Amino acid sequence: MSATQDKPAAAPKGQKTPKPNKMAPKPKNEAASTGAIQIGIEYKKNEDFSNWYQQVVTRSEMLEYYDVSGCYIFRPWSYRIWQEIQKWFDSQIEELGVENSYFPMFVPKKALETEKEHVEGFAAEVAWVTKAGNTDMEEHLAVRPTSETVMYPYFAKWIRSHRDLPLKLNQWCNVVRWEFSNPQPFLRTREFLWQEGHTAHATKAEADEEVTAILELYRRVYEELLAVPVIKGVKSEKEKFAGGLYTTTVEGFIPTTGRGIQAATSHCLGQNFAKMFNISFEDPNAIAEGGESKPLHAWQNSWGLTTRSIGVAIMVHGDDKGLVLPPRVATVQVVIIPCGINKNTSDEDRAAIDRTMDETFKALKKAGIRAKVDDRPTYSAGYKFNHWELRGVPLRVEIGPKDVKAGQAVAARRDNGEKSTVHLASIADDISKLLDTVQAGMFAKAKAERDASLAYVTKWEDFVPELNKKKLCLIPWCEGEACETEIKARSKAQSAEVLDDKAPSMGAKSLCIPFDQPQDEDKKIKAGETKCVNCGKDAKRWALFGRSY
Amino acid sequence: MSATQDKPAAAPKGQKTPKPNKMAPKPKNEAASTGAIQIGIEYKKNEDFSNWYQQVVTRSEMLEYYDVSGCYIFRPWSYRIWQEIQKWFDSQIEELGVENSYFPMFVPKKALETEKEHVEGFAAEVAWVTKAGNTDMEEHLAVRPTSETVMYPYFAKWIRSHRDLPLKLNQWCNVVRWEFSNPQPFLRTREFLWQEGHTAHATKAEADEEVTAILELYRRVYEELLAVPVIKGVKSEKEKFAGGLYTTTVEGFIPTTGRGIQAATSHCLGQNFAKMFNISFEDPNAIAEGGESKPLHAWQNSWGLTTRSIGVAIMVHGDDKGLVLPPRVATVQVVIIPCGINKNTSDEDRAAIDRTMDETFKALKKAGIRAKVDDRPTYSAGYKFNHWELRGVPLRVEIGPKDVKAGQAVAARRDNGEKSTVHLASIADDISKLLDTVQAGMFAKAKAERDASLAYVTKWEDFVPELNKKKLCLIPWCEGEACETEIKARSKAQSAEVLDDKAPSMGAKSLCIPFDQPQDEDKKIKAGETKCVNCGKDAKRWALFGRSY
Repeated sequence: MSATQDKPAAAPKGQKTPKPNKMAPKPKNEAASTGAIQIGIEYKKNEDFSNWYQQVVTRSEMLEYYDVSGCYIFRPWSYRIWQEIQKWFDSQIEELGVENSYFPMFVPKKALETEKEHVEGFAAEVAWVTKAGNTDMEEHLAVRPTSETVMYPYFAKWIRSHRDLPLKLNQWCNVVRWEFSNPQPFLRTREFLWQEGHTAHATKAEADEEVTAILELYRRVYEELLAVPVIKGVKSEKEKFAGGLYTTTVEGFIPTTGRGIQAATSHCLGQNFAKMFNISFEDPNAIAEGGESKPLHAWQNSWGLTTRSIGVAIMVHGDDKGLVLPPRVATVQVVIIPCGINKNTSDEDRAAIDRTMDETFKALKKAGIRAKVDDRPTYSAGYKFNHWELRGVPLRVEIGPKDVKAGQAVAARRDNGEKSTVHLASIADDISKLLDTVQAGMFAKAKAERDASLAYVTKWEDFVPELNKKKLCLIPWCEGEACETEIKARSKAQSAEVLDDKAPSMGAKSLCIPFDQPQDEDKKIKAGETKCVNCGKDAKRWALFGRSY
Repeated sequence: MSATQDKPAAAPKGQKTPKPNKMAPKPKNEAASTGAIQIGIEYKKNEDFSNWYQQVVTRSEMLEYYDVSGCYIFRPWSYRIWQEIQKWFDSQIEELGVENSYFPMFVPKKALETEKEHVEGFAAEVAWVTKAGNTDMEEHLAVRPTSETVMYPYFAKWIRSHRDLPLKLNQWCNVVRWEFSNPQPFLRTREFLWQEGHTAHATKAEADEEVTAILELYRRVYEELLAVPVIKGVKSEKEKFAGGLYTTTVEGFIPTTGRGIQAATSHCLGQNFAKMFNISFEDPNAIAEGGESKPLHAWQNSWGLTTRSIGVAIMVHGDDKGLVLPPRVATVQVVIIPCGINKNTSDEDRAAIDRTMDETFKALKKAGIRAKVDDRPTYSAGYKFNHWELRGVPLRVEIGPKDVKAGQAVAARRDNGEKSTVHLASIADDISKLLDTVQAGMFAKAKAERDASLAYVTKWEDFVPELNKKKLCLIPWCEGEACETEIKARSKAQSAEVLDDKAPSMGAKSLCIPFDQPQDEDKKIKAGETKCVNCGKDAKRWALFGRSY
């Protein structure tokens, strides 16, 4: 396999110099290639999703495979999306009184082990620093898999009185979880980027309220920025955060594989960590009554959103031509391409096109629209169309000699190919509206697809067949932990019976118990009447089960 | 030593609950304390700089000592400064066509060792991950001390043709250098935050130009944002970046200790890394002439600015009351405090003050000024003055009953204590101008102090005495590596002879060869005439030597 095959198609034929490169990543199953130029995507999303995804993320220049398995390079085309998410999320949490900070990434072994249940959830995946230079370290240091045990000893120090509450900190950082299962770009990586919020409150009510407020921000990141529909709910006891009280989640869905994916989680930790780390404060009521002051344990939350979100958006929106980026986060929202120029085009017409492109670019930039002019002289318009389609730019504006004369341009949507005429006199307005239309259209399409993939299952016989139709199953459920284990095992066994290439022999786990419970009379859970689809005990609520990432 | 002594003075007497905390950091030499409230700074900057600095950074809530030596917690009060620097620097490098990205933090051993000279510069300080969970790793992974060896294998992959150049990437990330010398908050830490820019160019001229442009941005970060004067220059061969061609630098100065400090560096790597990592491209001229294409090696730069910058600003501007923050980066630029309220103040007057504070806050916020109202009812005005002075807030606005009636307020400057009257009708304008005045005043004061500490030394006998007067020495220098080594040893030996508590027995090293060489006739270096102050050989240029961090 040549090192050039993942090379983005940026140079025309004859300009390539394949050269050996020991460091070059070797994506599996990539079609054989001998250094020929690769334009576009060779796999169909619906036929070979795995190779399609791998080609899309690399050829669009989103990501590069790295020499350490499970670690990837975020190239500017993806990193900028992360920055857009950061910018928006930061502005929102600032309104909630959350402050950004930065804690060290190394966790001393003894601190990591303070909360037993918590460390058991991560122990197998911890990367350990044991040497500095040639010196063996006395105490081994974990690279943070998450920062509860880094931060909470200091919460204990900083929090003394109810006046020190609430304490609301957030950090944007890298974390490491050395998973041994198959890595997947963006979705399952050994190092990833995230924000982790950690807060402490005087009362459970206040902590609960924040958990909900943050979850709503996560919903908005997915639905409003990434145009990806998610389902809000609470995790089962089995799936909740290790050591926490309860975990709320937004759950995404990848239609092509029929698998759910945990999109972001907002945990209420209760007082569990506070007790372990001795995070306590004076009771204001006891003081007010003039009695002895009584220290209370703080109520804590933690909440996180990772770079996984980028992968979810790619999987949901991408098509056989490559990426389809939601306008709100796209690095380039509009690419302006000169068209209809040939050897007969007069210098005057060429100059007019250049001028118009420049004016258009400036008008868009002034309106805060991220635009780019592709005026590379040695490439054809068709080549450029493919180039930017592969990279998912939401709108293409074509400007030719006739357009200039008519005071207009053609705008082509990446998401559905629709073309329309925009007016140069009102270009910023026209494009701005079109971008909003694209954003809304992408969400509506993804939502319709997701909604069509939710099956209400009321008898077990339908459960695996629905999974095999690439659906998620909503079932009346007892919420028992043993029952959940059984559902996974049972669905896995039955999946294996009907196994073919397209249906993975994967069991279903609970994704969440949706907050939004069916209210129709025929679906309403009736206490003592509605039974769990698996075990037959009394069902408590509808729960979302599915194969998942 | 009680865990509470570093506790910021946020709660009034009687509200404290000292509690044992094994994780609590133990700053050395901290005055004994028995849980009493600590307000303000107990050490004088000029008398015990080391303890002064330690108290200032912790009690201002900039930083917290962490349980791993050499690692520190950036609390919101300091992290926000870093974010302000990021925001400004990002906007500037975007104009230069630099794109942000993120590369993995783990470097495989073999990649780290590709460039021999480079790895030798870092080998002793590398932290190694050797285990994941309970599994020993086959290949040990270095935690990046810098990312040349992480990135350049991929530069080799991405760069094929001159059309792929220039390639300009930057990342904001954490890096680890496990130094065994004394750690110092912000200045010398084992994990720190920085940006590292890495670029590749077709020609040396283009690389040179960028090195200079970036260095100018670093000057502006220090001088315009942090109000800290710096000297631009080039590093000696001995002090340049390991494996690079030449290193340019901005050098800061800490008057209280008389020591220089490397503030940020912009390196031209030449073609050295390109050769090691095989980063080459087609020669456009050879192609244009129709001849055989000839691959050329790229010219590379790397450049970095770290969180050390925050420490430099604290050391330069701080005073016996605590922090003094430059307005442009301060988290809170203006604190609004109600004054002149006592038990005789009418409800009407109280309401009028509240309303005025609220209006003032809104007017300032609308003008983009970061303001905060301190209306905590249980604290006196005097307590609040101390609280915010310790934290370095550039301006305090005092609003009392008489002020409201007169349509004015009192503004007090943190940097020099000056008070002036501002008008409520034009509050945003008045405050905005005052903030600019403070920013300019802080820089002017720091520059005058720095300039007064530069000694032009033309004979060796004056060298160590000037160092002992806490000065940096400019000397005509031969630029020889052996001579530099000798200067360090000689000045160290002579320092020891006169050693007392205030003059460290530290040798002087070359800080830089300033770009701005003296042009006066009496100072101009005359080829063949002017001799090196140390070795007597022909001097080439004036060089800046000093004790340093």
